[in-house]
Amino acid sequence: MSKYSIGVDYGTNSVRALLVDVANGEEVATSVFNYPSGDAGVLYDEKDPNLARQNAADYIEGFFATVREVMKGHSADEIVGIGVDTTGSSPIPVDRSGMPLALDPRFKDELAAYTWLWKDHTSHAEAAEITEKARQQGQPYLAKCGGTYSSEWFWSKILHCARTAPKVFEAAYSWVEFADWVPAYLTGQTDPLTIKRGVCAAGHKAMYNDAWGGLPSEEFLGTLDPRLADLRKRLYAKAVPSDCSAGGLSAEVAARAGLKEGLPVAVGAFDAHFGAVASGAKKGTLVKIIGTSTCDCMVHPLDEPLADVPGLCGIVNGSVIPGMYGLEAGQSAVGDIFNWFVSELGTAGHEALTEEASKQKPGESGLIALDWENGNRTVLVDPLLTGMIVGLTLHSTPAEIYRALVEATAFGALKIINRLEEYGVMVEEVVNCGGIAEKNPFVMQIYADVCNRPMKVSRSAQTCALGSAIFGAVVGGAYESVGEAQAKMTGVKDRVFAPDPAAAATYARLFKLYSDLHDAFGTRTWTGNLAHVMKDLIAIRNEARR
Amino acid sequence: MSKYSIGVDYGTNSVRALLVDVANGEEVATSVFNYPSGDAGVLYDEKDPNLARQNAADYIEGFFATVREVMKGHSADEIVGIGVDTTGSSPIPVDRSGMPLALDPRFKDELAAYTWLWKDHTSHAEAAEITEKARQQGQPYLAKCGGTYSSEWFWSKILHCARTAPKVFEAAYSWVEFADWVPAYLTGQTDPLTIKRGVCAAGHKAMYNDAWGGLPSEEFLGTLDPRLADLRKRLYAKAVPSDCSAGGLSAEVAARAGLKEGLPVAVGAFDAHFGAVASGAKKGTLVKIIGTSTCDCMVHPLDEPLADVPGLCGIVNGSVIPGMYGLEAGQSAVGDIFNWFVSELGTAGHEALTEEASKQKPGESGLIALDWENGNRTVLVDPLLTGMIVGLTLHSTPAEIYRALVEATAFGALKIINRLEEYGVMVEEVVNCGGIAEKNPFVMQIYADVCNRPMKVSRSAQTCALGSAIFGAVVGGAYESVGEAQAKMTGVKDRVFAPDPAAAATYARLFKLYSDLHDAFGTRTWTGNLAHVMKDLIAIRNEARR
Repeated sequence: MSKYSIGVDYGTNSVRALLVDVANGEEVATSVFNYPSGDAGVLYDEKDPNLARQNAADYIEGFFATVREVMKGHSADEIVGIGVDTTGSSPIPVDRSGMPLALDPRFKDELAAYTWLWKDHTSHAEAAEITEKARQQGQPYLAKCGGTYSSEWFWSKILHCARTAPKVFEAAYSWVEFADWVPAYLTGQTDPLTIKRGVCAAGHKAMYNDAWGGLPSEEFLGTLDPRLADLRKRLYAKAVPSDCSAGGLSAEVAARAGLKEGLPVAVGAFDAHFGAVASGAKKGTLVKIIGTSTCDCMVHPLDEPLADVPGLCGIVNGSVIPGMYGLEAGQSAVGDIFNWFVSELGTAGHEALTEEASKQKPGESGLIALDWENGNRTVLVDPLLTGMIVGLTLHSTPAEIYRALVEATAFGALKIINRLEEYGVMVEEVVNCGGIAEKNPFVMQIYADVCNRPMKVSRSAQTCALGSAIFGAVVGGAYESVGEAQAKMTGVKDRVFAPDPAAAATYARLFKLYSDLHDAFGTRTWTGNLAHVMKDLIAIRNEARR
Repeated sequence: MSKYSIGVDYGTNSVRALLVDVANGEEVATSVFNYPSGDAGVLYDEKDPNLARQNAADYIEGFFATVREVMKGHSADEIVGIGVDTTGSSPIPVDRSGMPLALDPRFKDELAAYTWLWKDHTSHAEAAEITEKARQQGQPYLAKCGGTYSSEWFWSKILHCARTAPKVFEAAYSWVEFADWVPAYLTGQTDPLTIKRGVCAAGHKAMYNDAWGGLPSEEFLGTLDPRLADLRKRLYAKAVPSDCSAGGLSAEVAARAGLKEGLPVAVGAFDAHFGAVASGAKKGTLVKIIGTSTCDCMVHPLDEPLADVPGLCGIVNGSVIPGMYGLEAGQSAVGDIFNWFVSELGTAGHEALTEEASKQKPGESGLIALDWENGNRTVLVDPLLTGMIVGLTLHSTPAEIYRALVEATAFGALKIINRLEEYGVMVEEVVNCGGIAEKNPFVMQIYADVCNRPMKVSRSAQTCALGSAIFGAVVGGAYESVGEAQAKMTGVKDRVFAPDPAAAATYARLFKLYSDLHDAFGTRTWTGNLAHVMKDLIAIRNEARR
């Protein structure tokens, strides 16, 4: 009898369950559930474009809908374990029993009581304050998260809640990351103080590190707000990697899902980190998980020297692969930019625009864009940056702008690679995964040409869910280690996107212009003149059209 | 019996005839003819977005179609004169008999043989060369055209033709401005050497000035290309204002149009200059003719001091109102930008976008744009500038971008007003005319708020054609002077757009950001840092949304 594990992958708009053969990684069944709340699962506030929340009720409903679906034709005995990944940092305010406040009818109309979704940027003032105070006090906390704390992260969001929605803050006994809350729910844990917390969310987003005794000190948190110092007591002292079990499936959940009570559930982690594992993350391999945003992951041996790389989202022991440093970088918006363009400004859909844009040569449009429509995560770590298009003429077409936006995200990707290598983390191969890597050869070819490196694509089309299933297999005892599981359950596709030398040469010139705009608008240290930008774009355009 | 004059206004896409009562300016009949050639009258080259040409056959066909239409119900005896205005600088290569080469079947497929439309920017290298050589040699020629020669103008285009289409250049006995060619055709003149040339086109676009003996010297032209020096002999020695008659209607044209042989035809001029006259141009009044592009005109007494204003398109004795200096500035694209957006990127039309954009407060979108999609005519005089949008987010809507583009053109308008006043030409009132002024209160209100000045609108909806009719009335003897004709035949509408103080205050802040981008991308002298731009836009946005 084959043995299977289940990976459950919670994205921004939907949740997916994947049933995987633990022997070879074969994806046997999958099911997707679109969140019913809000606008494709996200609650917005039209007065504040920075706000983005979610309803935890969707997570519960989605779990049962998808797991029951993939279990059709399979028996509970065939399943060895479950892994769960989610977006993040997406903290959830919970009551004394671990229940999200949003599920309490009293808080139904309070957006602050809902999940603070990763892309919620309401807390930029708090992020700046955290960064400033940590720097002023000479605290070590920022060293492992790129030197700048982000408005997308745990403490910024909680501090913003304390200040702007004090009733919700007071009603919250604790705060639990989305990635920790789902396993806690599945395993029937009702005490926030003992819920297993994953080191992935803790280390990358909550400034958790064993080097300074876990979370930031009460003293430091007290200088932000005394209520945060108080909250620290109701969070956690220790975070663990995802090869640990969060517990066994509760009787109630097992019955409703058609699974065995006590089935091991792995400690949760961020979708991208599990995606990296399922894409074969190892030393020297950069895994780019490209979806609405990107997450760029690398791992590094614990016994080799590693600098604190400025601008990275985090360097955390055990966050991607247990027993190695996990390094995370990312771009705040990639697919989201393309989707915005198509939904707001596209006279055509992705397919037609892609077909048209594919016919253009690099530089032919005379356009260049910055990919900051949702701020910049790496290397500038600044949510208050915005998108920009330069070079527009009365002849600029939607397909030209669409291509310029794709190129902008590729330039942003190259900035990350360059930053890693500048600090000694050499990128020997790039493996891409996620929906865009999977389905979009046009984008992948531009990435290869802009980065002037081959782009590989992960074999699985559902790497995050596969990563969850890998951890489900490990906690279920099918493998001794994540590395062993990776060797059997992962791979890359045969088709590798090789850079075209002529395109790469043109993009090298355009990347200089991108860098000028990047530095002029994104850093306070740049000084200079930009009069060459439009001229150079026209010169490159004229050469491309020759 | 009432007396009438006919104004014929040749635009970019169509020609209009207007029958006007000379006693009071009443517009009795009008008719429009859309040019049948190319794309709405313009011939493009998909390999070169700078190219824009026209077919003179359209001019002839359009004249008879529209004039016959407005003459319905009227007799030839009622008409005292005809005036003609056109776009420009739009030079036409002609043969020895004054016939446009494009009408010669041998040149049917040569785009260089057609009318080089005002917005043709193929000659930017030649424009830069003319500017550079005139400066190097200390020639005075640029003083009256803002210090920089434009790719839109006469000599740049002819030099580009000589270099890139020598066969056409050699076949051209002479070159005649569109505005001069139509009156020559109507009056049956077949010798390019004696065709009356208007001082408007000559002075503003061909560096003609009595102070240096007419056109630039053979020596100077020879340093550009010996063939230009040679061509000078086949152009003209003297240019005259439009209160001069170009001649009487030829028997052939008169018969075909249903008019009297010998009917006086005024010397032609640019559409915008006649529009300014019909909008009541006088000392202290800035007339903005707002259409696909803008032309901004002022007049100044000959006996008052007047500096050479850098960046202006021209300062020419007699070009707007005979006996005064005519000053011309302009924006290379205004309505063209809005039309581009709607046709390429608009999910809705002008009306729906305007309705939606009208609900927004100044600054609320967080967007700012540069209005350079067709280069910058004033004050930078640089066709190699391009459009730009900053502040895009995943929530930016088409209506927000549309409004930002409108605002960008208003900022560009304010740059022109400021430049005039910096050089002592005080703007006491602003009268707008043209299609956008006439039909678009949304745009007019933004102009009032951005410029923080009342915006008046010319009474006539067809000012260019009315201006032509005014000159037709003058050459036909109905008035002694243009000023007398203006007093009887022009006026402004009752509705004046007053600036809103709160909006003006916000726009003053945004104008600073516009100016930073303008100077950073548009001048080589600026140095600095732009990191504040996105931050300030967000701060202004947040205040506007409060």
